[in-house]
Order: sequence, then structure tokens, then C-alpha cells
Amino acid sequence: METNNACTMHSHCIEMSMEVHQVVPPPHKSTLQKLKGRLKETFFPDDPLRQFKGQPLKRKLILGAQYVFPILQWGPKYNLKLFKSDLVSGLTIASLAIPQGISYAKLASLPPIVGLYSSFVPPLVYAVLGSSKDLAVGPVSIASLVMGSMLHQEVSPTTDPILFLQLAFTSTLFAGLFQALLGILRLGFIIDFLSKAILIGFMAGAAIIVSLQQLKSLLGITHFTNQMGLIPVMTSVFHNIHEWSWQTILMGICFLVLLLLARHVSIRKPKLFWVSAGAPLMCVIISTLLVFAIKAQNHGISVIGKLQEGINPPSWNMLLFHGSHLDLVMKTGLITGILSLTEGIAVGRTFAALKNYKVDGNKEMMAIGFMNVVGSFTSCYVTTGAFSRSAVNNNAGAKTAVSNVVMSVTVMVTLLFLMPLFQYTPNVVLGAIIVTAVIGLIDLPAACNIWKIDKFDFVVMMTAFLGVLFISVQGGLALAVGLSTLKILLQITRPKTVMLGKIPGTDIYRNLDQYKEAVRIPGFLILSIEAPINFANITYLNERTLRWIEEEEDNIKEQLSLRFLVLEMSAVSAVDTSGISLFKELKATLEKKGVELVLVNPLAEVIEKLKKADEANDFIRADNLFLTVGEAVASLSSAMKGQSSTITEGAHTIVSHN
Amino acid sequence: METNNACTMHSHCIEMSMEVHQVVPPPHKSTLQKLKGRLKETFFPDDPLRQFKGQPLKRKLILGAQYVFPILQWGPKYNLKLFKSDLVSGLTIASLAIPQGISYAKLASLPPIVGLYSSFVPPLVYAVLGSSKDLAVGPVSIASLVMGSMLHQEVSPTTDPILFLQLAFTSTLFAGLFQALLGILRLGFIIDFLSKAILIGFMAGAAIIVSLQQLKSLLGITHFTNQMGLIPVMTSVFHNIHEWSWQTILMGICFLVLLLLARHVSIRKPKLFWVSAGAPLMCVIISTLLVFAIKAQNHGISVIGKLQEGINPPSWNMLLFHGSHLDLVMKTGLITGILSLTEGIAVGRTFAALKNYKVDGNKEMMAIGFMNVVGSFTSCYVTTGAFSRSAVNNNAGAKTAVSNVVMSVTVMVTLLFLMPLFQYTPNVVLGAIIVTAVIGLIDLPAACNIWKIDKFDFVVMMTAFLGVLFISVQGGLALAVGLSTLKILLQITRPKTVMLGKIPGTDIYRNLDQYKEAVRIPGFLILSIEAPINFANITYLNERTLRWIEEEEDNIKEQLSLRFLVLEMSAVSAVDTSGISLFKELKATLEKKGVELVLVNPLAEVIEKLKKADEANDFIRADNLFLTVGEAVASLSSAMKGQSSTITEGAHTIVSHN
Repeated sequence: METNNACTMHSHCIEMSMEVHQVVPPPHKSTLQKLKGRLKETFFPDDPLRQFKGQPLKRKLILGAQYVFPILQWGPKYNLKLFKSDLVSGLTIASLAIPQGISYAKLASLPPIVGLYSSFVPPLVYAVLGSSKDLAVGPVSIASLVMGSMLHQEVSPTTDPILFLQLAFTSTLFAGLFQALLGILRLGFIIDFLSKAILIGFMAGAAIIVSLQQLKSLLGITHFTNQMGLIPVMTSVFHNIHEWSWQTILMGICFLVLLLLARHVSIRKPKLFWVSAGAPLMCVIISTLLVFAIKAQNHGISVIGKLQEGINPPSWNMLLFHGSHLDLVMKTGLITGILSLTEGIAVGRTFAALKNYKVDGNKEMMAIGFMNVVGSFTSCYVTTGAFSRSAVNNNAGAKTAVSNVVMSVTVMVTLLFLMPLFQYTPNVVLGAIIVTAVIGLIDLPAACNIWKIDKFDFVVMMTAFLGVLFISVQGGLALAVGLSTLKILLQITRPKTVMLGKIPGTDIYRNLDQYKEAVRIPGFLILSIEAPINFANITYLNERTLRWIEEEEDNIKEQLSLRFLVLEMSAVSAVDTSGISLFKELKATLEKKGVELVLVNPLAEVIEKLKKADEANDFIRADNLFLTVGEAVASLSSAMKGQSSTITEGAHTIVSHN
Repeated sequence: METNNACTMHSHCIEMSMEVHQVVPPPHKSTLQKLKGRLKETFFPDDPLRQFKGQPLKRKLILGAQYVFPILQWGPKYNLKLFKSDLVSGLTIASLAIPQGISYAKLASLPPIVGLYSSFVPPLVYAVLGSSKDLAVGPVSIASLVMGSMLHQEVSPTTDPILFLQLAFTSTLFAGLFQALLGILRLGFIIDFLSKAILIGFMAGAAIIVSLQQLKSLLGITHFTNQMGLIPVMTSVFHNIHEWSWQTILMGICFLVLLLLARHVSIRKPKLFWVSAGAPLMCVIISTLLVFAIKAQNHGISVIGKLQEGINPPSWNMLLFHGSHLDLVMKTGLITGILSLTEGIAVGRTFAALKNYKVDGNKEMMAIGFMNVVGSFTSCYVTTGAFSRSAVNNNAGAKTAVSNVVMSVTVMVTLLFLMPLFQYTPNVVLGAIIVTAVIGLIDLPAACNIWKIDKFDFVVMMTAFLGVLFISVQGGLALAVGLSTLKILLQITRPKTVMLGKIPGTDIYRNLDQYKEAVRIPGFLILSIEAPINFANITYLNERTLRWIEEEEDNIKEQLSLRFLVLEMSAVSAVDTSGISLFKELKATLEKKGVELVLVNPLAEVIEKLKKADEANDFIRADNLFLTVGEAVASLSSAMKGQSSTITEGAHTIVSHN
């Protein structure tokens, strides 16, 4: 029954599609037009100027100003109701930003107050320039860690703190310039090469390193390595067992348990977000009071010490553009710039998608870049949109960037009046705050998911992870990016070629391996090539195609000999001069074997180039160029039937595959 | 009439394809199986072990020996008739190899005799190991030029000739090791990255530089720059006008004209190949006699001078593995190794295709590599299959590698007995021979063809050309390779998305821009994505898809609103974890707009990964996954018709595009 039905359907289809449709080249475009189109897709895929089209000049000016300063867009519509939400969320993130700012500055081996400076100026700049409504701006753990460890390589923050600070500000300037430049040149896609798999591996590795480094404050060790690797840190820990202070360890464990509990509560019940958001500040207050009350600083618990009051001093006179460290500073700026940009953009996009508004990646880069440039003039180090704080901001009901302003003002008040209160804050509690924050960066479920879906992505992820742990932050990242780029290149160098068969009862041709019911057509070898054809793969494609043909000839000796090699080109998105030469060579080789080369559905670019190269009209003749495989097979088999009397059955014979 | 016909056809098709075909995932394969398959395609695409399959052990051993030593394959069948052909061709290429060997050695700033040594041992090694029947082995111009110029950077061949020679032999060893390693590790595809466009530009640039450098001998200048660039060479030429010798110039012009004429004759009439093949030796003989007769060496014409008799002395004691030049030597070995490999493999493949036999690229690399390793022990510098001599070899009727043996023996006889004859050979004639040889490397028609077919390839070609002329050989090559790799990456980062329409009267959907008769289906946006979806392009694809939808919404406000986004995935050859997340994100965004995401014909790998990632069964439901666009449109429009009464016409309404 089934077979019978398929057969009538099939002959029916053949008849119908004997009306053969022409493959046509695309309409002619000049090189300039094509170049323009290509450049537009490369640099302006989001078509940012679309809203300006057809508007009067005055409106264009307003739109332009709004484009540069998004605050002009939402500012005029701002009202008290929005402010109430922003006030609550602003105060909430401030309570998180103050202890985190101090902690992250210590992570970067900078004076704690620089972390507060960095939570004051940049959020104000971002409020004017940024287009995300949820981003909470300030120092972040990864960029702090990387900046500290990279500058460490050449300068010690303990023996030469001023130079270290100068290098940090200069790196921040370069990071900002680089970020803004990426945005202005619309090269934002460069950060796409830090794929999600890389980031998951990298962040887990960084979280482990950061946590281990906190063992210094958590165990109360005074002599600790300056290096970042897993091995030197662990050596430091166990070589200085005599320095461990039980008072510090006890305090550390208590606050760590407290913070982790608070985190757990907030994860379980998102409505109680304020528990984990307020916990760090609470811990700082409690521990400071405790130290003050029992004079614990005299019992082996180290404290922050006296902090200077007052808001950010200018720092443009501290920028260094000469000397032996310029190289290092530029490299540090580049890497911390990319890392903080990646985090900021990813956070912005995540919340924009959640709330259904749009964030322009390249514009955000300019905003973050400008913010860091201003930061480097005002004693701030690298800042960006922090994931944890933005999540809290969003949970607390932030409506606009005013929540950043509220946070900034709160930090300012702290800087002006509350600094003496931090004098007795123990370092151990800062360590506990950092550990709690970075532990959230380890995303095991995502890692498992990657393993499940794509083994190669998993390898890339592990490369980033182990590279960060055992080589260095930059080394691990570079290795992982190189590996994933290599994968892309390898996909091009070794494209898949797939043998197609006819799905019975239709005119559809699909992968024989995948569609078991598909059948082969005798006399035809139908291959689908699944990549652009270019210099990097023509040797392979040539060899592979010939191997297909040889295997085919071995297989079907008793049956109809091979007459046509049909190349289904729907997936060949582009071709270059080498690709064109492949077709010529293939045609010549096939002719010697008595096999004809037939092309099916070459895409616009391919057909255009084939036509240009094909002066002798060898490829683009009606009898070897078809719009679908079905039409090609039908047309060629009827021609074959007409020609030769030995082939009685022609395309109507369907032989089963396997 | 036409429309009517199309309409009945169309409704007919809809009815027929209402029988919807399932998209099925590929059969399950374990990770190990997949890895094995992937590794096989990457490293063994030519399946070299296929001939061993199913053979008895003894036969396998013989086949194995023949695989390593191709001479065992053709040797036993060798006969007198073949030898006659090989003798003629061998003598012909020897007459070319001797003057070229001397000239190219001078090009590499090596003693002339090293060129003859290099035409003696390596051809013998190749005759045993090589699988090409036409390759004529010996020193070549490009590799000589590059080796000379790279070693020049650190050591002067005039002030420190022994060290220079040592570095040359050591570079040759590294070149050989590198070549053999590429073959053994089956990484031959690396040389594919020197695309034809790059080679054309590079060779033209190198030919110009080589020719300009010959102005030293052609004009008789004694003080000449050691540098390679266009500018220092031209400066050298015009700053030393007082050194120009009219006798040398006269002689140079005469022989240059003679050689070019001979070349012209052979190009016009390929049967007279022996004219250009014999011309260099004739010129050497005539000029030597002339100098000897009129004692021209005393009248401002410089001659080669006394050459040592005897065959290659051993040189393993001259290899240097320590000291400050190791870095340079390895770099020189790498670059000359790649360049000579590219030439050798390309020549071998060209003639193999012409005569319809096969050359195994990776095996050839091992043969050429081993030949250079042996060469470095026996006072030879880098050798490979030379294009010009191989062409002469082929024209002269060479049948097997025995022609290389004949050439080698002839060179040996020359080395043993005829060296004193070259004492009076003027350098100017060697310069003329080099110029004539390299002028053939400038391939203007090929350059024009590249301009016609692919503008980007032309840019790559010009980069290689200008880079070699104005920067350096390595610099120009690296720039061009980088640029063409960047193009591949950019194709992935910015894949094309194309809007499809229905070709009236069929079930075929094609590019609306290319097929003007194609029409859009109201309520549907049908996009074809033409690249693998991965981390490098998900941001772009997300933005671009949303822009398509927005443009669509702007356009069709008055008509049927958008209901379905159909993604035709036939050209998406692969997907990674980031790609999967794009689908999830896109689906969520579209749902907010009331648009449904429909996938058509995802390929094996894609459907497999989608299935793994799709625990909630969101994508892979029968109602949003179809085998062809036609079936998707037919099935969804009939469902839509059933649902809503406002859409009376459904898929039967065809609106014209543009």
C-alpha cells in the first residue's frame, strides 16, 4: 500500500515539476553599492539612524541630543512616583555598594577609599549618558582582581603605593578610551568573542582565585603571596600556618555563615531580596561595633584603619604616559576594559530583554568608556554595571538611572561624614563579603547544560577555567578565545558534505543519514555542501567529493553507473576566486570519469560570481543548473531516458538505501 | 492565463503538501563516535588507509612499503621505453638546473656551488620518496630570495660567509623538519591559507624585488644595499650611477633580449619548449667563451671566479643549535619551509590533475621535508619542486621520477669535472637568467580575473603585493593571510539573512531580491539564515531579526499583521550553546509581539542540539517545526484560517512584492 501510494505520488511530482524553473542571477549592483551594503551590515546592523529618517531638522536635533544624552529622553517625563521607587532602590544598592566598594578596592590592592570614590562619580556620569534603566554602576570583582594582579607583575602596592595608584588611574583611562573607541568605531562585536561558555569558565576560575586570596584576611595571615595562581596561593596559605589567628578565623566563619544564609534566603524567596542586599552593611556595622567594643584590634584582628574624609580629589596629575610601565598600563587597560565592558553590556542586555526595552550596545560602550575616562580624572578605578548590584536594583524596583544618583549621593554623604566609622571595620568581614559575592559567579547548572548540549563548548569553558586557575587571567582568556575561533575556522576548513535522498511521495531531498525513509536515485550522486567555499576548504572539498564518487562507484557497480553529480548549493553562502576554480577543476575531473556536474540553487552571490567567471558558459547552462534538486533529477532523468535505451526505468526506479 | 495556471497549481500544491512531513533527529551517536568522525574528516579526509582494508597481511606490508616508498610502486614496472623519455627530459632539465642553481644560490647570497649541490642530493631523495611523476626538484627563486633576505637581517654574507652558510644549512634543517612534521601530523591544510590570490600578489611582488636586485649584476654595481625593500634598492641603484659599467650593461641587454625571445618562442609554440629550456645554458656557454676570448673580466665585467671541484661535502658539523641566531634560523626555516612547500605541492597537484593521477598532499610534505633534512646534512639549502623546471620536465616527456635521477647524475658529472669551465662565466648573465625566470611569476591575466570575480580577493592580493614590496616578505604574507582569515571570520560574525518568497505555481521559496517573480505570503516573515549560528553572531542575528520584524511591521500595517516568523535553517550547518540561547531569547521576544517562531529544516546537528536543550518542549513541537517552507506555510495558514474568521483568504492570497 505504502509503496504504491509513494509511487503514484512520485510520478505525479515528476510530471508536475517537469516545468523547470530558471535560476536567475541577482539584480546588478555596482561594487560601491555592494560595499556600502556590506559596511552597513557590518557596522550598523541595528540601523541607529532609522528614527531620524524623514523628520524635520528641529526634531532631528532633539532626537540627536536624546541619542547622545538619554537623560533628555526620560528626564522630562520624570515624576514623584518614579522617584519614590528610585529612592528605595538607590538606598538599597548604596547599602551594598559601600561595603563592596571598600572590599573590591582591597581586591585590586588599592586603598579602600578608592572603591568609595569609584561608587560616587561614575554612577553620576552613567545616569546622564547610559541607556539602561537597571544598571547599578560601580567597581566589580573580576575587573578589580585582574587590574590588581596585572599591575602586581611590575609594581608592588605595599612598597610603592603611589606609583601603583598612578598606574591604576592610567589603566582606567586607557580602559575608558578603549571602550569608548570600540563604541565609536562600532566594533562592539569584538566582545562577542568572549562567548558565554568562556565567561562561565572564566568567572568560575576567577571566583575560586578570588576566594582563595581572601584566605589572607579570613585566616589572618600577614605574609601572603602577590601572585594569582592556585599553586602559589595555596603554598602561601600552608607555609604560614603559624600566622593563622583563631580569633580572625572564628569571626570570619561567623560572618561568612551569616552572609551565606542571607544569600540563601534571598535566592529561595526573591521577595526577600533586601535580606541579602542589606546583609553586607549589617555585617560591617556589627563587626565594627564588636571590634570597637572588645578592642579586638589588639587581639590579632586586623582592621581597615583610619580613612581620609572628603570626596574624590582630582587625579589627572597622577596619570603617567611615559616611563617603563606604559606597556603594562595599556595592556591592563585593554583587558580590564574588555572584561568590564562584557559584564556591563551583558547585564544591560539581560535586564533590557526582561523589561522589553532596547539597549544599544555601541552606545553603551561609549557611555561606559566616557564614565571611566571621567573616573580616571577623579580618583576612580575601572567601573561598570555590576551584575549582583543591578539584580538587587531591579528587584528593589528601580525605574530609571536616578537610583544610581541616589546611590551616588549616599556614598557622597558617607565620604564626607561617615568615614571615621569604618576605622575599626575588620578586614576579615570584607573578605567574607567578597567570598559571598563571588561564589554566585560559579554557575554549575549552566556548566552542566553546556556539557549536555555542546561538548566542544565545554572544552572551551574548561580551558578558560583551568587557564585562569593555573596560567593567568589573560592567558586563560586568550587560550579560550583562540580555541573557539579555531573551531569556527575549522568548520570552514572542513565543511560538512552530506548525501541527499528523496523522501518518498514528495519532491523533497534530505540527508540520507538523518531521514531513514529517504531513497537514492540511481545514476545520481546528490551532495549538499554546508559552508561557504573558499581558499581554506577547496582542497578538502575536492578530495572529499572525489572520495564520495569513488565510494559510490565501488558501491553501485552492479547497478546503473554514476551519471550526474548534483551539488545542492543552498547552504553555500559565499564563494571566492578559489571556490570558482574548484568548480572548474571538479568539472574537468568529472568529465574524465563521464560524470556531469550539476549545480542546484546557487545563492545570489555565488551565481553572480559563477556567471562572471564563466566566459565559456560551462556552468551556467540550462541543462546543468536547476532551482531545486527535484527539478534537476526529473529533468535530467527524462533527458537520460530519451538518450539511452539501456536505462529503461530512469528516475522512476527508486532503490532503497541501506 | 499565466496567473490562472499558477493559481490552480498553487492550490494543488497546498493540498498535496498538507500531508506534512516530520523533521527527524539524526540517529544517536555517542560523543566518542562523533569525535572519531570529526577527527577523521579533519585529519584523514582522503582516507589513505582505504586500500589496506580487507587485504591479507602480506599484501598490507607490501602496500605499506609502497606507501612510504612510491618507487616500489612504479620501479618494478620500469622499462627501457620509459627510460628513453626520462633520459631526454632529465638532460633537458639539467641544462636548466645548472645555470639556475648557480643563479639562485647567488640570489640567496650563498656560494654558487651550493646551488649545484642542492640540485644533486635532493632530487635523488625525492625520486625514492616522492609520488609526483613530473616534479623537477631543486632550488627555487622565491625560497632563495626569502632565505637570503631573512638571514641578511642579522648576518652579512660578505663579512661572515661561514656563519651565513651555517645559518642557511640550519634553516634548511628546520624547514625540512617543519615540512615533515606538517605531513606527519596531517596539518597540510595550513598551507591552504596561502590562497591563490595571496600567492599571485606575493609572487608578483617577489619577482619585482628579485628583478630589481639583479640590477646589481646587470648594471655592474659593486656597492649595493643588503636590504630587500623597493626603496633601498632603487636608492642603491641611483646613488651609484658612477659605478655603472657600460660593458656589463651592453652584455646584460643582449643576453636578456636573447633569453626573453627564447621564452617568447616557447610560449607561442609549446612544441619548441627546448628553445627556452636550453637558452640559459647556451647563454652561459656563449658568455663564458666570450669573456674568456676577449678577457672581458679585465674590462669591468665581473665573473663567478674559481669554483671548487667535487661533490657535496657533509655539512652536519655546520648545523648551529645554540647562540643568538637560533630564533632567526627557526623563523627562516618556518617561512621558507611553508613557501617552498606551497610551491612544491601546488606544482605536484597541477600536473597530477593534468595527467589524471593522484598526489597525496600530506605524503608529499613528508617527502619534501625529508629531502630537505637530508639536504641540510649534505651542503644543500632549501629545495622543492620548481614550477618552471617541472613544466619543462613535463613538456620534454618525463614519465617517472627517473628524470630527476638523470638530472642529478648530470649535475654530479658537472660538479666532478666541469667546474673549471664556469670560472669565466660573467655574473651579468646569471642576473639575466634570474630576471627571465622570475618575470614568468607575474601573472597579470590572473590578477585581472580576480578583480573581475571577487573584489575582496583582489584587495588581499594587493596587500600581499604591496606588503612584499614595501614592508617585507614575511610582513606582506602575514598581513594578507590575516586579512583573508578576517574575511572568513567576518562572514560568520555578520551572516546574511535573506527574505524568502514563494515562486508562483510552485512550493519553492527563494530570495525575494533575486527572484523578482517570487511573492510574499501575508502574515508570514520567512527568513533564511546563511551561516552557522554561534557565539560570534548571535547578537547580530538577534538585532537583525528584530529589525526585519520592525521593518515588516512598518510596511504591512494596513494589511494582515505579522503572525509567524519562519526561519529557514537549511544553511545553518552548526549551532553551539550560544546559538541555542538565541532561539530561546528570540522566542521570548517574539511571544511578547504576538509572533510565533517557526523553524524549517534544521540540519542533523542543529536538531540534535535543539532537542537536547529543549526540555520544556518549546521548539520541537509539530506545530512549529517543518521540513519545508511550503509545508510550514500551508499547514500554518490552514490552522490560522480555522482559528480566525478575519483571515478569509489565508495562504491562497498572494500579494506581490515591490
